[in-house]
Amino acid sequence: MRKAFVAATLVLAGLTAGAQQALWGVPQLISPELNPDTTVTFRLIAPGARTVQVAGDFNSSSQANLKRNADGVWEYTTQKLAPELYSYSFFVDSLRINDPSNVYAVRDVATVSNIFLIPGGRADLYAVNDVPHGTVSRVWYDSPTLGMKRRMSVYTPPGYENSTERYPVFYLLHGMGGDEEAWLTLGRASQILDNLIASGQAKPMIVVMTNGNASQEAAPGETHYGLKPPTIALPRTMEGSFETAFPDVVKFIDSTYRTHPDKAHRAIAGLSMGGFHALHISKEYPELFDYVGLFSAAIKPREDTGSPIYTDLDGKLRRQFELEPRLYWIAIGDKDFLYEANRDYRKMLDAKGYPYTYYETSDGHIWKNWRIYLSEFVPQLFK
Amino acid sequence: MRKAFVAATLVLAGLTAGAQQALWGVPQLISPELNPDTTVTFRLIAPGARTVQVAGDFNSSSQANLKRNADGVWEYTTQKLAPELYSYSFFVDSLRINDPSNVYAVRDVATVSNIFLIPGGRADLYAVNDVPHGTVSRVWYDSPTLGMKRRMSVYTPPGYENSTERYPVFYLLHGMGGDEEAWLTLGRASQILDNLIASGQAKPMIVVMTNGNASQEAAPGETHYGLKPPTIALPRTMEGSFETAFPDVVKFIDSTYRTHPDKAHRAIAGLSMGGFHALHISKEYPELFDYVGLFSAAIKPREDTGSPIYTDLDGKLRRQFELEPRLYWIAIGDKDFLYEANRDYRKMLDAKGYPYTYYETSDGHIWKNWRIYLSEFVPQLFK
Repeated sequence: MRKAFVAATLVLAGLTAGAQQALWGVPQLISPELNPDTTVTFRLIAPGARTVQVAGDFNSSSQANLKRNADGVWEYTTQKLAPELYSYSFFVDSLRINDPSNVYAVRDVATVSNIFLIPGGRADLYAVNDVPHGTVSRVWYDSPTLGMKRRMSVYTPPGYENSTERYPVFYLLHGMGGDEEAWLTLGRASQILDNLIASGQAKPMIVVMTNGNASQEAAPGETHYGLKPPTIALPRTMEGSFETAFPDVVKFIDSTYRTHPDKAHRAIAGLSMGGFHALHISKEYPELFDYVGLFSAAIKPREDTGSPIYTDLDGKLRRQFELEPRLYWIAIGDKDFLYEANRDYRKMLDAKGYPYTYYETSDGHIWKNWRIYLSEFVPQLFK
Repeated sequence: MRKAFVAATLVLAGLTAGAQQALWGVPQLISPELNPDTTVTFRLIAPGARTVQVAGDFNSSSQANLKRNADGVWEYTTQKLAPELYSYSFFVDSLRINDPSNVYAVRDVATVSNIFLIPGGRADLYAVNDVPHGTVSRVWYDSPTLGMKRRMSVYTPPGYENSTERYPVFYLLHGMGGDEEAWLTLGRASQILDNLIASGQAKPMIVVMTNGNASQEAAPGETHYGLKPPTIALPRTMEGSFETAFPDVVKFIDSTYRTHPDKAHRAIAGLSMGGFHALHISKEYPELFDYVGLFSAAIKPREDTGSPIYTDLDGKLRRQFELEPRLYWIAIGDKDFLYEANRDYRKMLDAKGYPYTYYETSDGHIWKNWRIYLSEFVPQLFK
């Protein structure tokens, strides 16, 4: 018997660390290194480089110079950083690259950046913690209104699989050029939900992350169009199609998942273009949602599109507020290029006497703010 | 009303191509470009570089030199390539980087590489085609035997959500250092299943992709250990724990999904370490699986571990083959470092008179072969 089991000379479990590196091609370099004092050290081996820089949201995208140390390794240590999820890139002789030592990289529209997380404070909501985890699914549904099968991401809360309970549903929409992956990558939606549910701050809920580009079946790379580069310039964007077809999504969710299919158990929110969508969908179907969130919303007249979605805003908002949504929540950063448009929209709501809650942060049109808004909005739902 | 909707000066839908680039930071360069004659052109803008090379499985990892063209763009065009999913990296003055123009990159253990796909032939099984798509979920389950909650990937076939049908289950295991993501990324499991089911070559089935590292709750980055670099050198690998705990997985699946919970409707297969696991799990629990697949399996004596899983192989195989599994399928490449060990194992099966099917390919211990084996194995199941 043993004879039959001649061990191969290079047995898998006997690989040395050196052989492992050769086999998998990864240099033994730690980058980024999260230091105990909350500074972060970036490292790169680039023998031929004349200059190496690092830039990201940790340094407002200014380029910091790495210096070659005695071992020939390029290195840079940041100031102390506040708890946050950060993204960054290296620049080697001006060529933008990802950090070869950091396998954690996420795509945002058409750019891939590396990420790291400084724990503590609110950033602990963005980390995977030792708590029960929900299920995250990529699901295809039929949209007869758009005439296509489309892909969505669905978060079901811990325990969903082996219970008979019904749950409320939160529809969470992405920004322009984004897709059904966006809230799961830089948005950290599943981590935020897991953590808020575990601490009792949020009710267990289903979160539905659709694809808001009406011309697109699914995220780039996930359709029969192949591995083509993503583009922000998609046709049929903010011209009424997505809003018109939204009941297809709600119908699919209510017929597929154990939901409470009523207004009191439905929320909708979105960032940027998704905030625009949340505004128009919630007023177009005022009987659907009791909770509405506009995160850095693109407040923008679109009557020029000819879509009936954008006509009679006055009348539709009146009906929406007559039905008294339990929460109409507007959030924006004080440096957002959409700040003025949001202020004007709030003035209009004020003039009409429509109640809403306003939440202002610093900074602009960035993921840091959208993670904050998500983690502020979710605890207010379905209470 | 219109007054309230003052458009922001930089309106989202009005961004020019140039502004989009600036905002999202992506240069307008096509790389890789798939040419009509099935050659592929790689391009890189690297003004400071002295040498730029490209290497991948399309050129057996030899480094091909890109040349600077008249526009200052580094460029290289391959020979005609056969249909296949390929991965590659650039080397700029010896620094290994990903292609900044290609956002499609996958992690294999601790290495991130870019991918592209030349369509045609078998490679069409690896592409997302215009066919019904199954759902892919990341699900956490309880493993009392290992004393932890663990993560798996689950593929449910098209139509699963809105039917009452029961389905057979195929357990698909990864190799050393891999995790529950491996078969979904370079393995193209969901595309292969979608396409084979759509063409009628495979029965609709549930595919369960567990994490085979008994010390690991989930893929790197998906646990409370944080965004630490992945490692191949994990404790509790191939020492009996995973095999011992496997009934926890089957129990969870049969209690959570609409399965046919019997031997005739269960298959198990794995690559490399996963083939080793499939061998031992299928003989340890001979009443569970009617279909067994060993893909480039690590045939390796492990009695030294002291685990009862690896004792009495003779007796356990005898019981397994007495129960007459409908398919015992062994596949390997003729240049695989495990080729001899697999030949010896087959000789032993021959000597005992245990029936099996053998499938040999060219090449070695590589993903190209594992995709082939998966697409050959699946059509033989549950018929």
